[in-house]
Amino acid sequence: MEQNVEQVLSSFRQLVRKISSYHEALGLLGWDLRTGAPRKGAEMRADTIGMLSTEVFKLSISEEMGSYIDFLSRSEIFDQLSDIDQRSVTECRKEYERSQKVPPEKIQKYSSLTTHAQTVWEEAKHNNDFQGFEPMLAEIVDMNREFIDYWGVKDTRYDTLLDMYEPDMTVAKLDAVFDRLKSRLVPLLQKIQESSDKPDNSFLKQEYDLKKQEEIGLFLLEQMGYDFQAGRLDESEHPFATGLNPGDVRITTHYYPEDLMSAIFSSLHEGGHALYEQNISADLVGTPLATGTSMGIHESQSRFWENIVGRSRVFWDHYYDKLQSLFPDQLADVTKEQFYRAANMVENSLIRIEADELTYNLHIIVRYEIEKMIFNENLAVADLPKVWNSKYEEYLGITPPNDAQGVLQDVHWSGGDFGYFASYSLGNMYAAQITQTMRKELPEFEQWIAAGDLLPIKEWLSDKIYRYGKSRTPSELIMAITGEELNPDYLADYLEEKYTEIYKL
Amino acid sequence: MEQNVEQVLSSFRQLVRKISSYHEALGLLGWDLRTGAPRKGAEMRADTIGMLSTEVFKLSISEEMGSYIDFLSRSEIFDQLSDIDQRSVTECRKEYERSQKVPPEKIQKYSSLTTHAQTVWEEAKHNNDFQGFEPMLAEIVDMNREFIDYWGVKDTRYDTLLDMYEPDMTVAKLDAVFDRLKSRLVPLLQKIQESSDKPDNSFLKQEYDLKKQEEIGLFLLEQMGYDFQAGRLDESEHPFATGLNPGDVRITTHYYPEDLMSAIFSSLHEGGHALYEQNISADLVGTPLATGTSMGIHESQSRFWENIVGRSRVFWDHYYDKLQSLFPDQLADVTKEQFYRAANMVENSLIRIEADELTYNLHIIVRYEIEKMIFNENLAVADLPKVWNSKYEEYLGITPPNDAQGVLQDVHWSGGDFGYFASYSLGNMYAAQITQTMRKELPEFEQWIAAGDLLPIKEWLSDKIYRYGKSRTPSELIMAITGEELNPDYLADYLEEKYTEIYKL
Repeated sequence: MEQNVEQVLSSFRQLVRKISSYHEALGLLGWDLRTGAPRKGAEMRADTIGMLSTEVFKLSISEEMGSYIDFLSRSEIFDQLSDIDQRSVTECRKEYERSQKVPPEKIQKYSSLTTHAQTVWEEAKHNNDFQGFEPMLAEIVDMNREFIDYWGVKDTRYDTLLDMYEPDMTVAKLDAVFDRLKSRLVPLLQKIQESSDKPDNSFLKQEYDLKKQEEIGLFLLEQMGYDFQAGRLDESEHPFATGLNPGDVRITTHYYPEDLMSAIFSSLHEGGHALYEQNISADLVGTPLATGTSMGIHESQSRFWENIVGRSRVFWDHYYDKLQSLFPDQLADVTKEQFYRAANMVENSLIRIEADELTYNLHIIVRYEIEKMIFNENLAVADLPKVWNSKYEEYLGITPPNDAQGVLQDVHWSGGDFGYFASYSLGNMYAAQITQTMRKELPEFEQWIAAGDLLPIKEWLSDKIYRYGKSRTPSELIMAITGEELNPDYLADYLEEKYTEIYKL
Repeated sequence: MEQNVEQVLSSFRQLVRKISSYHEALGLLGWDLRTGAPRKGAEMRADTIGMLSTEVFKLSISEEMGSYIDFLSRSEIFDQLSDIDQRSVTECRKEYERSQKVPPEKIQKYSSLTTHAQTVWEEAKHNNDFQGFEPMLAEIVDMNREFIDYWGVKDTRYDTLLDMYEPDMTVAKLDAVFDRLKSRLVPLLQKIQESSDKPDNSFLKQEYDLKKQEEIGLFLLEQMGYDFQAGRLDESEHPFATGLNPGDVRITTHYYPEDLMSAIFSSLHEGGHALYEQNISADLVGTPLATGTSMGIHESQSRFWENIVGRSRVFWDHYYDKLQSLFPDQLADVTKEQFYRAANMVENSLIRIEADELTYNLHIIVRYEIEKMIFNENLAVADLPKVWNSKYEEYLGITPPNDAQGVLQDVHWSGGDFGYFASYSLGNMYAAQITQTMRKELPEFEQWIAAGDLLPIKEWLSDKIYRYGKSRTPSELIMAITGEELNPDYLADYLEEKYTEIYKL
């Protein structure tokens, strides 16, 4: 390589490393705020987060960054670069170009708007007052419509938003996938509702000691290979995972005294996110590639560990004895089978975040279809409650009694995160599809789980997914692992098989 | 004020606020590293801290900062500014000029040197090998000698270093003060050693439950007015206090199973530092003045609460019953008087950080005199062990059996912190002098403590010291509060009176 290329490359690497360091600081400031920062410091903390966010944004769109990207993107130079450098340049160029296209004052305005909207949404939800949120939501939608114009439209306008969370995902692909999924899940849900042999989960709602809940959570995290030398478990209002760097990936959970499974499943869920970030290859540290490749792939890992492993019969074949011995008063008379069925109860409830493995996807499809209507068919914000309610009736067989339990339930739109929801269901579909390959390549898959030997599973996932971080796109990964594109039938097959057995359909 | 002045002032304020935000982030990154950050993230964390430190240093010596300071310092403009703005400008100018005087590559070199020296010192101390540390220490001393040339000499060369930690403190002042103190404390210590009626503190070295130690620590912090809405207590290897902003001032302690008083006194000590930072006026937030005015004044507050309050007879008159009821097995047969005497045991030990209220000052005087010899009389680094040992023999009547327990014991010199040690004794002297005034202005001082009513004392200190932050110099504060300059006799009087009674001299 020429001297000059080496120099620019070295400066470019330094700059992206600096950006990584800012993200690490921001990650810690945010983690601290949610896990135990003193209340009276919150205002100054918000300022500090705002300041550092602005600094890192400035770096990512700086002239310096622009000149490195321009130079390193010239094909005769780009072709000489290593795979990691090429992917880093591409990633930075993507963000640089996206940000350059929108006038800075619009970005500023949008940032204030969405910060303010959070509070307005909270209040509107609290008061069950959609009209109170409507004008602001309309403004957020309008600004997103404007941004789509700035960023440019590929196929449909909504594609531009989807691509931010799931690179290369399109309405054309998702329509096909979700229609297929819907066509199989809606009838399955109907059959389940008609089943006369339903599980009883009332014993999960007794009083469960919080210390013991923590004990089992820590134990299961260790079992799945979460590295406590590279992370820690804390409590927060809502569980989350945050990766400061692969050596520091923290998770949180929330313990409820009268709900045994909430903390257990959230620990497995966040633990799945964390395994991904902890096992990213050391080569990628300090580059923009040292993170999960997309929201959908990230979610596939949390849902793999929470649902496919953590809600499986073989998992509790092994771990139920331990759980029972921790809570003899509550579980002594509960059989493994009763417990397994209770942990897999299906309910067509109104609230997404409380939904089971099956109906969750229907909650997502409702949101996907509505967002698509907003951006591709100019659905008016004022009409959202009506459309929301009719889709809930159609897919889940229930109509929300009010907007607080309907269209106002999620935080996402107040933050302008249109295009995000699909990730949750993509996660479920990716997870099922990847599992199908894993079962072929690791025929001992079920025996291992039944023996409490989860580490070979973690190793396989590290090898196929985790280590690559963002250096492979979601579709490259899925194709390389499973040999085919995203296919919703694996999820539908898995759910059909599982629930046919549980509900004796 | 003219338009232009307003504009520059506003930009200046924004810049110093940005600097404050960086310090908040750095404070949290450091706190986290010492209280529970995962081990495997430490290397990347060090990078992040290094990067943000460099950024904030660049801001403080930026052309932008230089131009604001130049403009705002013009006397016709400076005179129009508010007191806070004047003090902010002065503070920034001081740091700006100091940093400008040294070539950046020297600062860079010094920073690497002292980072590296930390590890070398630790190893040398561990191996009791002064020669292993000597070359590096000599280099650090040489660079400090060079820096003194860059920064300029006022009266003696060592003054230039003292001024960094205690503005306006000089060898001339300290020589007088320490000579006086030494002349009174050395004979007092001899009398104590000859006393035939010594306390027994063996009962403090039984096994004490850690949870209960935490309970009493939290209770006492609450009693002294530490605001848990604006702070939190954690554990760390060495106790410390860190103020991210007045709404977020955190403290740590360390619990030892076989030492009852260590965690209690360290909580009172760090709590004293924290009361100072929590009660800084809101006007100063986001300026360089929102911190303690000097190391000496800061230390006066930690030592006031730890020693003058926390080691007083009236304090334990009130709180001993509670302590006894927490630890009945260990303390049932121990009277208040026995406990009070044990908590005030004097021992001429070798180690500064384990020293009592009296001998602590002699440990400091040894270090002060040696540092003065290094910088004012060119004492060679190779001669340090010899000088150290002879001064310990002279003032404390003991000779260290090896360098690990002698000249190698402190971390300070490996970090280049020459001039810092004096602050500890200054803290003791300031505390005694301020207490003398407090007793006059608050005649109920002792009754309040005896009644467990500590808040009026905190209020008085907030009013006289805390709220001002760095907007008053140490000498301004001491003069305003006590009406005279630093006077070592208050400390000597206090110690003589206290120990004459305890040791029945």
